[in-house]
Amino acid sequence: MDLKLDAAAVQALIRDGLVAAGRGGLVVEEVRVNYARICLPFEDGMLRPGRVISGPTLFTAADSAMYALVLAHLGPALMAVTSDMNLRFLAKARPGDVIGEAIFLKLGRRLAVMEARLSSRAEPDRIVAHATGSYALPIASDHA
Amino acid sequence: MDLKLDAAAVQALIRDGLVAAGRGGLVVEEVRVNYARICLPFEDGMLRPGRVISGPTLFTAADSAMYALVLAHLGPALMAVTSDMNLRFLAKARPGDVIGEAIFLKLGRRLAVMEARLSSRAEPDRIVAHATGSYALPIASDHA
Amino acid sequence: MDLKLDAAAVQALIRDGLVAAGRGGLVVEEVRVNYARICLPFEDGMLRPGRVISGPTLFTAADSAMYALVLAHLGPALMAVTSDMNLRFLAKARPGDVIGEAIFLKLGRRLAVMEARLSSRAEPDRIVAHATGSYALPIASDHA
Amino acid sequence: MDLKLDAAAVQALIRDGLVAAGRGGLVVEEVRVNYARICLPFEDGMLRPGRVISGPTLFTAADSAMYALVLAHLGPALMAVTSDMNLRFLAKARPGDVIGEAIFLKLGRRLAVMEARLSSRAEPDRIVAHATGSYALPIASDHA
Repeated sequence: MDLKLDAAAVQALIRDGLVAAGRGGLVVEEVRVNYARICLPFEDGMLRPGRVISGPTLFTAADSAMYALVLAHLGPALMAVTSDMNLRFLAKARPGDVIGEAIFLKLGRRLAVMEARLSSRAEPDRIVAHATGSYALPIASDHA
Repeated sequence: MDLKLDAAAVQALIRDGLVAAGRGGLVVEEVRVNYARICLPFEDGMLRPGRVISGPTLFTAADSAMYALVLAHLGPALMAVTSDMNLRFLAKARPGDVIGEAIFLKLGRRLAVMEARLSSRAEPDRIVAHATGSYALPIASDHA
Repeated sequence: MDLKLDAAAVQALIRDGLVAAGRGGLVVEEVRVNYARICLPFEDGMLRPGRVISGPTLFTAADSAMYALVLAHLGPALMAVTSDMNLRFLAKARPGDVIGEAIFLKLGRRLAVMEARLSSRAEPDRIVAHATGSYALPIASDHA
Repeated sequence: MDLKLDAAAVQALIRDGLVAAGRGGLVVEEVRVNYARICLPFEDGMLRPGRVISGPTLFTAADSAMYALVLAHLGPALMAVTSDMNLRFLAKARPGDVIGEAIFLKLGRRLAVMEARLSSRAEPDRIVAHATGSYALPIASDHA
């Protein structure tokens, strides 16, 4: 397993592509073999009642971290699409930049299965949500 | 099983509470015993590359429909929190108002388990994503 | 969507293949377009403490019903493999034959996504567990 | 977080309770703070076509490892019940003793959320399946 793109290249691809992510200024902080970390800079729209980070924001962080991991390892595979996502909410996430870290559970030819841990920079050592998800990967024979 | 709140009351509670949902003008279209339907009016920020409805938007629709269902049956149980969400993306969702319909799989004392089907009004008969999720419910004994 | 195999043919394929299922005498009760129902005849080994049907038994029923659905629609695609399974346990299942009913959420070229409802014949109208799962499908180009 | 029971005590509780597990001779190999490892000794009934470990066997290993983790930390909480299980199958598992290792993602008052990794002793460094699951915990107020 090795990398096809660095963090800056992954970030450029994601920002170009995603209206929503581009608006929030998603940052790809680090990519290395079998690891990607993204940051969603804090903004008030991320909060739900009780001033905790909302579920959709945590979903976005998980999905973005997984997508960054796939892009870094496969190159500009913009056709990779989320097939499913399983999110578990573990603790209240205090207002702060939202961090998503993803690793591969499996990188197959047709499916990438990943795990992500989500946290807030307001309390960096606390995992506030855990996700596993799979992406369907474009395959050579699909384009033959 | 019977209802504690009607659609207008549920909508008022959700809009008051959720910055993000309030901004988008979430509509609670219908609540009845064991059913809730919400609508997220279309806006460009919902799209991802290829002009399809994004994953976070579908997550929001699933979560909002489930929350509306819980509110309608339990009253203003604002302490109900999403415990987990499993989302399966089935088809590309064309630009349009996003519809979420939720039913109970189980309404227990401590946990509500729900199922949601998501679609776009651009293609109303096509389920574009399916979700199951659980909410932890506040219980009397917790506050005793 | 139409059928490639009837219930008897599906049952023969599953029984031939699965040591565990064969032992328990799994019955494919019905297959039709977008529907399969299997029965695991009751035996004491299915019980866990409290005399309720065990989790592994319900998993087996969900997986068998989904596999029967795939076989009925795709023919003897013995290479189809479970990619993931999400099971929610809703109620205690009393001792009795275990019934699994599966439908498609999506039948794609590469992935079949299905939903299954599990019940016990001791209390036929009560859904005791709900499952969604996906199967990776063998594709022509894989064998080219 | 500390332990209420050691591996031998956990094993005795599980074997007493579970007909199916008792039959297969489940071994609780290790429990320590935030970790439990169980072993299902290999037997032919675990195999599915292609001579790989079956899905129900991997489900059993995940569920048993999580249950052992809960028992070790909470004592003989035999009323703890699996609420949901999400299993991802990553690789073919060759015939061999099946190992399940579980950790907590969250140990709350009402819900324990856990992660498990499954492998076969035939190929110990290969994770063949990954699971996350939640258990509903009995609470004092339920028995008041």
